[in-house]
Amino acid sequence: MEIAELGEFGLIHHLTKDIEIKNAETRKGVGDDCAVLEYPTGRQVLVTTDLLMEGVHFDLQYVPLKHLGYKSAMVNLSDIYAMNGRPRQMTVSLAVSKRFKVEDLEDFYAGLRLACEACQCDIVGGDTTSSMTGLAISITCIGDAETEKVVYRNGAQPNDLICVSGDLGAAYMGLQLLEREKAVYNEQVREVRQRGENPDTLPPFQPDFSGREYLLERQLKPEARRDIVEALAKADILPTAMMDISDGLSSELMHICTQSHTGCRIYEDRLPLDYQTAVMAEELNMNVTTCALNGGEDYELLFTVPLILHDRVCAIPDVKVIGHITKPELGLQLVCRDGVEMELKAQGWNPLKSRK
Amino acid sequence: MEIAELGEFGLIHHLTKDIEIKNAETRKGVGDDCAVLEYPTGRQVLVTTDLLMEGVHFDLQYVPLKHLGYKSAMVNLSDIYAMNGRPRQMTVSLAVSKRFKVEDLEDFYAGLRLACEACQCDIVGGDTTSSMTGLAISITCIGDAETEKVVYRNGAQPNDLICVSGDLGAAYMGLQLLEREKAVYNEQVREVRQRGENPDTLPPFQPDFSGREYLLERQLKPEARRDIVEALAKADILPTAMMDISDGLSSELMHICTQSHTGCRIYEDRLPLDYQTAVMAEELNMNVTTCALNGGEDYELLFTVPLILHDRVCAIPDVKVIGHITKPELGLQLVCRDGVEMELKAQGWNPLKSRK
Repeated sequence: MEIAELGEFGLIHHLTKDIEIKNAETRKGVGDDCAVLEYPTGRQVLVTTDLLMEGVHFDLQYVPLKHLGYKSAMVNLSDIYAMNGRPRQMTVSLAVSKRFKVEDLEDFYAGLRLACEACQCDIVGGDTTSSMTGLAISITCIGDAETEKVVYRNGAQPNDLICVSGDLGAAYMGLQLLEREKAVYNEQVREVRQRGENPDTLPPFQPDFSGREYLLERQLKPEARRDIVEALAKADILPTAMMDISDGLSSELMHICTQSHTGCRIYEDRLPLDYQTAVMAEELNMNVTTCALNGGEDYELLFTVPLILHDRVCAIPDVKVIGHITKPELGLQLVCRDGVEMELKAQGWNPLKSRK
Repeated sequence: MEIAELGEFGLIHHLTKDIEIKNAETRKGVGDDCAVLEYPTGRQVLVTTDLLMEGVHFDLQYVPLKHLGYKSAMVNLSDIYAMNGRPRQMTVSLAVSKRFKVEDLEDFYAGLRLACEACQCDIVGGDTTSSMTGLAISITCIGDAETEKVVYRNGAQPNDLICVSGDLGAAYMGLQLLEREKAVYNEQVREVRQRGENPDTLPPFQPDFSGREYLLERQLKPEARRDIVEALAKADILPTAMMDISDGLSSELMHICTQSHTGCRIYEDRLPLDYQTAVMAEELNMNVTTCALNGGEDYELLFTVPLILHDRVCAIPDVKVIGHITKPELGLQLVCRDGVEMELKAQGWNPLKSRK
């Protein structure tokens, strides 16, 4: 169905009509000039926002729209958890070009809603408009936390343990894999064209990723670590600093150390890696540690806890201590497998610097 | 200065470093995973968001970036006032293409900050990224209101008076004027090219708009009606329904009547018009009433009040009663100057339907 058949309000109604409100804090969702929220006393409100642009943040040649919806929501949900909060509401704005059909947006919303259901978050509004060029997605997520339990980036203290959830570098390896297969496919299309044949006769882009499923899933369907935030609360651990790893471990560690006025020391042999990440790095002739440090898009949690909580934090499944916070004059150090120390540099993904 | 020289975090720091927080409700602004807000008991939180795309919502050939920043903020601030709220915080996301310099974004932010200062709103975060094509702007505005004082679209009752602030149609006339002058200029460029000359030798696009300043100002520098919301509070008037006029009076009236399950009756001779709007409509051979009904982008307030408040609402400067709410079965009627009744149709701006 053409989007123009529905128009703006018709489309919004079509996509949002059966959304159920899950949070008592949501007093009014889609349908007025504003959404209306009401939070109980003693809780602070958390707000985060992301703008995702086609060709910069995602490639529709290999990202299905349902996955894109899921991921767009998850990257924002992740920021709320990174403050030790709980997501409550989300606004979703889309600018779509002519080539999109209503069914495409239904797919996008299906992914979005799946992510929101997993995190008990209400879709309360947004904006749907047209774009002269690519797809643009802007999501704002709102959450809350008890006032004393909000965790910032600036609270790390010397001797605090540096902890990471899950494993690192897999999402980046998934991206490399997709880019490689896309290049192969585009080369096939080019050859078919050169022979004067119609490239539409080629089977659609559907490479075999068997044995690499984990890497693809990490790239296409990242999960915000709600479970870790809940496990920390259950273990009565309040991190001194926390953030989510979206631009790469090095870059995020640098933010925590800069804002906390500390240094840090992490150990190469403690960096959590999945087997598939290591195999893929080898295949691509890349250094797996570099991938883990700078890969980005893992959406794992990076946090610091007082040394005294060592045993308690180690008891949480899927959390690993990778080093500790130091005095600022010691800088940011990586202790390599061979004992050599190297200064950490943030070489993570930077959408503005990477523009050549 | 090239944006790539600063990078994402450098740019955000550069643009936001001297922003002062004005509201006690803002506990943490730019610089963490989320902004942190805290609202006192008894107040509800209002959230609105807009996504503005180059080539759809604005044309950089005639919109200066400072004006664009100002307007982008104002259209969101206007939505908070439309709920009878006060704006408190704003997040600003930008996706910029290579042709933008740091100075361009400084201009955009200068306009943005001017608007926020006028409405006592804090810029608390956002996202700055790159775009493969045009400029994309996503703004989310957060405000608050006493729980009992939030005004929705659905509270209008038969016999309520329908009121409008300011005047209508001028922003649309300003757009027509700019589009006309742009077409003239582009024709000049085409002719110069045809003669084999360099179009850069032409003076830049700077047509003479004297006598039309009001129309241009309405298009390029709209003002959210904070003053009206404050005047209503001072006069102890709580509207039964309210919204801002962004897509045209007809369209907005239809929203209020649909959501309130009512009809309405408005009078052509009571529609507030500026002299310049009427002159320009005449010049362009357009019906000025059609412009006032469907023009859009006026960002005036449309609201309803109980009949008993007639004298009190008429005493507020710059507010005009244009008709009244009726029973739903009477439909939406416009009473023309000659006494003929016509059914109101929403023909306002629809970014999705207009895509041919």
